[in-house]
Amino acid sequence: MKKVAVVMGSDSDLPVVKRSIDILRQFGVPFEARVISAHRTPDTAAEFGKSAAAEGFGVIIAAAGKAAHLGGVLAAYTELPVVGLPIKSSTLDGMDSLLSMVQMPKGVPVATVAIDGAENAGILAVQILALSDEGLAGALREYRGKMAAEVTAKDSELQDNIDKL
Amino acid sequence: MKKVAVVMGSDSDLPVVKRSIDILRQFGVPFEARVISAHRTPDTAAEFGKSAAAEGFGVIIAAAGKAAHLGGVLAAYTELPVVGLPIKSSTLDGMDSLLSMVQMPKGVPVATVAIDGAENAGILAVQILALSDEGLAGALREYRGKMAAEVTAKDSELQDNIDKL
Amino acid sequence: MKKVAVVMGSDSDLPVVKRSIDILRQFGVPFEARVISAHRTPDTAAEFGKSAAAEGFGVIIAAAGKAAHLGGVLAAYTELPVVGLPIKSSTLDGMDSLLSMVQMPKGVPVATVAIDGAENAGILAVQILALSDEGLAGALREYRGKMAAEVTAKDSELQDNIDKL
Amino acid sequence: MKKVAVVMGSDSDLPVVKRSIDILRQFGVPFEARVISAHRTPDTAAEFGKSAAAEGFGVIIAAAGKAAHLGGVLAAYTELPVVGLPIKSSTLDGMDSLLSMVQMPKGVPVATVAIDGAENAGILAVQILALSDEGLAGALREYRGKMAAEVTAKDSELQDNIDKL
Amino acid sequence: MKKVAVVMGSDSDLPVVKRSIDILRQFGVPFEARVISAHRTPDTAAEFGKSAAAEGFGVIIAAAGKAAHLGGVLAAYTELPVVGLPIKSSTLDGMDSLLSMVQMPKGVPVATVAIDGAENAGILAVQILALSDEGLAGALREYRGKMAAEVTAKDSELQDNIDKL
Amino acid sequence: MKKVAVVMGSDSDLPVVKRSIDILRQFGVPFEARVISAHRTPDTAAEFGKSAAAEGFGVIIAAAGKAAHLGGVLAAYTELPVVGLPIKSSTLDGMDSLLSMVQMPKGVPVATVAIDGAENAGILAVQILALSDEGLAGALREYRGKMAAEVTAKDSELQDNIDKL
Amino acid sequence: MKKVAVVMGSDSDLPVVKRSIDILRQFGVPFEARVISAHRTPDTAAEFGKSAAAEGFGVIIAAAGKAAHLGGVLAAYTELPVVGLPIKSSTLDGMDSLLSMVQMPKGVPVATVAIDGAENAGILAVQILALSDEGLAGALREYRGKMAAEVTAKDSELQDNIDKL
Amino acid sequence: MKKVAVVMGSDSDLPVVKRSIDILRQFGVPFEARVISAHRTPDTAAEFGKSAAAEGFGVIIAAAGKAAHLGGVLAAYTELPVVGLPIKSSTLDGMDSLLSMVQMPKGVPVATVAIDGAENAGILAVQILALSDEGLAGALREYRGKMAAEVTAKDSELQDNIDKL
Repeated sequence: MKKVAVVMGSDSDLPVVKRSIDILRQFGVPFEARVISAHRTPDTAAEFGKSAAAEGFGVIIAAAGKAAHLGGVLAAYTELPVVGLPIKSSTLDGMDSLLSMVQMPKGVPVATVAIDGAENAGILAVQILALSDEGLAGALREYRGKMAAEVTAKDSELQDNIDKL
Repeated sequence: MKKVAVVMGSDSDLPVVKRSIDILRQFGVPFEARVISAHRTPDTAAEFGKSAAAEGFGVIIAAAGKAAHLGGVLAAYTELPVVGLPIKSSTLDGMDSLLSMVQMPKGVPVATVAIDGAENAGILAVQILALSDEGLAGALREYRGKMAAEVTAKDSELQDNIDKL
Repeated sequence: MKKVAVVMGSDSDLPVVKRSIDILRQFGVPFEARVISAHRTPDTAAEFGKSAAAEGFGVIIAAAGKAAHLGGVLAAYTELPVVGLPIKSSTLDGMDSLLSMVQMPKGVPVATVAIDGAENAGILAVQILALSDEGLAGALREYRGKMAAEVTAKDSELQDNIDKL
Repeated sequence: MKKVAVVMGSDSDLPVVKRSIDILRQFGVPFEARVISAHRTPDTAAEFGKSAAAEGFGVIIAAAGKAAHLGGVLAAYTELPVVGLPIKSSTLDGMDSLLSMVQMPKGVPVATVAIDGAENAGILAVQILALSDEGLAGALREYRGKMAAEVTAKDSELQDNIDKL
Repeated sequence: MKKVAVVMGSDSDLPVVKRSIDILRQFGVPFEARVISAHRTPDTAAEFGKSAAAEGFGVIIAAAGKAAHLGGVLAAYTELPVVGLPIKSSTLDGMDSLLSMVQMPKGVPVATVAIDGAENAGILAVQILALSDEGLAGALREYRGKMAAEVTAKDSELQDNIDKL
Repeated sequence: MKKVAVVMGSDSDLPVVKRSIDILRQFGVPFEARVISAHRTPDTAAEFGKSAAAEGFGVIIAAAGKAAHLGGVLAAYTELPVVGLPIKSSTLDGMDSLLSMVQMPKGVPVATVAIDGAENAGILAVQILALSDEGLAGALREYRGKMAAEVTAKDSELQDNIDKL
Repeated sequence: MKKVAVVMGSDSDLPVVKRSIDILRQFGVPFEARVISAHRTPDTAAEFGKSAAAEGFGVIIAAAGKAAHLGGVLAAYTELPVVGLPIKSSTLDGMDSLLSMVQMPKGVPVATVAIDGAENAGILAVQILALSDEGLAGALREYRGKMAAEVTAKDSELQDNIDKL
Repeated sequence: MKKVAVVMGSDSDLPVVKRSIDILRQFGVPFEARVISAHRTPDTAAEFGKSAAAEGFGVIIAAAGKAAHLGGVLAAYTELPVVGLPIKSSTLDGMDSLLSMVQMPKGVPVATVAIDGAENAGILAVQILALSDEGLAGALREYRGKMAAEVTAKDSELQDNIDKL
């Protein structure tokens, strides 16, 4: 199976990005986690992008905040799908991160998920890999089933306890 | 090769969505184009989502404006990756479409591209399919090469004509 | 009397939604509270919407955050009035929830109240039911009277204590 | 049947509000249309709100732009449900109108629809009146059916003509 | 000297509004403080506006949050200048309060100051009254002088302590 | 009677500012109109502010766009009330002008009106001067009366012609 | 004298960027104009950044729209000051371009000017070069003088013609 | 070497601005720190701007919040490059400060960095001075090298500890 690269612009993003990693582990998807800054280590970013396909990666998750260029910079160097995970910044509530990621110009998309939506970045990567991996596709269906069951359980719990509310 | 579904919430989105279709045609990717409204034909949306994988689709592009629920509604019914294309609405400049698509809750991602970024929706779909299709991967590299050559040509042209500017 | 459905997209919305329930109880309006996710349990949402009128509901309050599709999804399946209660999300201060609810396309309205405006969602439901229930209409006038009296009391209190301020 | 009041803050709002009126006419719902300014004719607004229920109105649609206080001012004087229709202003794209309407304080809701969403203001009024009028409820189901049929027709048309696109 | 009315939409605004009152006391300007809700006690608001000039008021400060109609409602009933003080709400950071106050339609201005800018609401009221009160004008010049001296002192302090920083 | 200064940051603001001047003329209030740039002619701005009171001005209207510092700069040099008129800029729809004017720090208010709200800037100036001029106060009441009559006429016209609509 | 690099992400930015070039020509500052895309020709961008200082450049102006990474990407490869010129995009009014440029993370600044503020990008470059070029400094003072004179002339013209207005 | 002026609008900005000072100290760049308010001490601001070049300053860093005029006011009085540091305000998350600084009109730029981006304000000043100081240019390269090494170390650390995560 192709690997997922989980790249973050700063190790301060790790507490959020950890939830992407948890998803990948839960689905048994091989991954590598990296700290690569589009602005402080641009050459590393360029090299990583250029060699990612050959290194066996199938999807790159790029997590960054503020002027979040990491997704776009990696996408500029690879044809692999790049999932953009905008990190909520200390000001502007992540709107800067979101717009810097999602508003990519014609030709070089970044597949952006919600601000701090780390689980969804992981799930999207799994969905992409599952296209050519029936086992993963089944695991996704099972995951959906579990999510639905959890909601249904909460629903029952609420109805059972409505009088105590 | 798996097909791409190009679903739009209204036929008024077609002039923008047409550019996604052009990309798919340019790459020789089979596709079907549909007008399905999450709010006016919700059953059709549900059925389409549920059967999409079995019908041979690999990626769904969902284009919608304003409270753009189409991407989320389709994603709720399928494990396939759903690419969200937020359409610029008549007010709020597409910010409503963008947030309604990208801010999906945990568990059900929509891979969102730029507002009116129709070409990129198409390219992202191609990138995803290219993971298991070496021919497509090559075509993407060629496409990137052409884009670069175009920029380089414009660069030369500008430098040659700078004195007349 | 017709019932009010209080549907929330996640049980994490309950602390806010509880204030809608308190209003309904205060007015003696029958209600049912449900946890139904537009994205995680879409079939349940569809079924709920389709059967709501037949089940004796007169108004549906839909509370959700982020890409808050719940109101629109329920409204797509019923002709009953749907009151949208946008929940403040952890980022963007609820602006995403608000726009995802209020900016509904032509044909399928969601009657949106303020971000986290749970009391008003309840009162709006009561106002709608009161159109065909003179007792409720009287209760609303009484409620307004009490609100006015509270403001007037605060006003007197302020004027009495202004010198100690 | 109770009447709908269609109140606009300025006659310049009429081209938008006309679409609410068209919906009411289409459903055969009696209505009165008024130009009442919350700021320029506040006494008229107060009197209108106070007497609306007694005059036989069941729902008030309030359309206004910029600091759109009309909905809130009418709602302050009546227990009837007030539907807020924010009009796109010449600056800020209607965001000011939307926030001035939807962010009502505890106790006095305004049921807000999309910016310039005039049809939906009308439909919401019809939905509310239909709660106690089975004929209207049937007409709403028929309207939904027609909308769905239109989307389906557009869908077929697109599929039939996809090769000429 | 004419009095200043300090009107707030809710007693929860008092901690902010208190700073307007402190300014008025500091300048020896007579004032009355009131809790009047545009939506919960609209008749009181109307009466207050109508009689304000006759009651000896010269300026009205109106403080309110969210859909902050209080300033506009009072302004609709009086020719006195109304100073709008937008209160930071629990969501949207006061942007809703600001736009609801400042974006008043043609004919009925509200003189809006910064979000939570309570001191400035007070100072603006003093500036207006000082036009016909030379003593107040002198007090304002003195106040400005003190402010400048404070800044200058802070400036000296910083320069003296820069090495310890 | 004290004069009103109508200061604009650029002569390109004149088409909007003209409507402030029309109001002042309509009320017979003496005024002077100036083009003074806070950034291009800062010394003129400073001198104007410093001498404004002595020159017989009672209110300053400051109109500017983008980083609209003019109001704040004039206010820094005078104790007179400064009315801020934010001009809609070519980008950002005047939100930059509004925030640059209204968000003044503690001690130096700018009485801000709506974006491009030129008439209201004029009316606010008249309201301020009317505090010590009973004739102006009467003229304001008459103006209000005329506005109300216009709305009422439009209202009648609409009701008379509703069937032709 | 060091040269200024005027780099734009797309030749479609040229009509705006032309005004930066006009400023540089007016001050006799040598420059080179380039079309380099951070995403479509990333290697060219990297090489340009790396060699810019050695090639005799002193300042780089980077103009780009939407997810405007160009400034940040160039700044990542050079220690030269990079002036960011955010281009108004077809949606969001340039807010995306502005945030993508100005919100740079710690360590790699981009000196951002106003959206479409092309003249100011040029002037800022001149100001930077003027620090070590007394002739340029003098030319800047002269330029300021001319700007002031223009404003003063407009001011006189307005005052002379006020009665015809 | 020319000095850097670090001017803040209020001493409450010091905790943020301190990080600019730390950068300047780290690079051995001489500086002076001042508290000067554009609105409370406008004459000091004007004098400071006018004499800055003659006093040996090469760059001015201006830090301010809310309606952050300080950068523009200083820039109006000097041809030196002015670096704008928008301070996050208590409301609006610094968006007001950013727009008030960056959206400067034609002719008078302020080189704006990120909201609370104090280190970058310092680095930008160093970059500007380094144009004519080879030692500083070398120090900047070294600083970049250290930043890169830190990121690389964090990257190695993450990879070494990924299994414990």
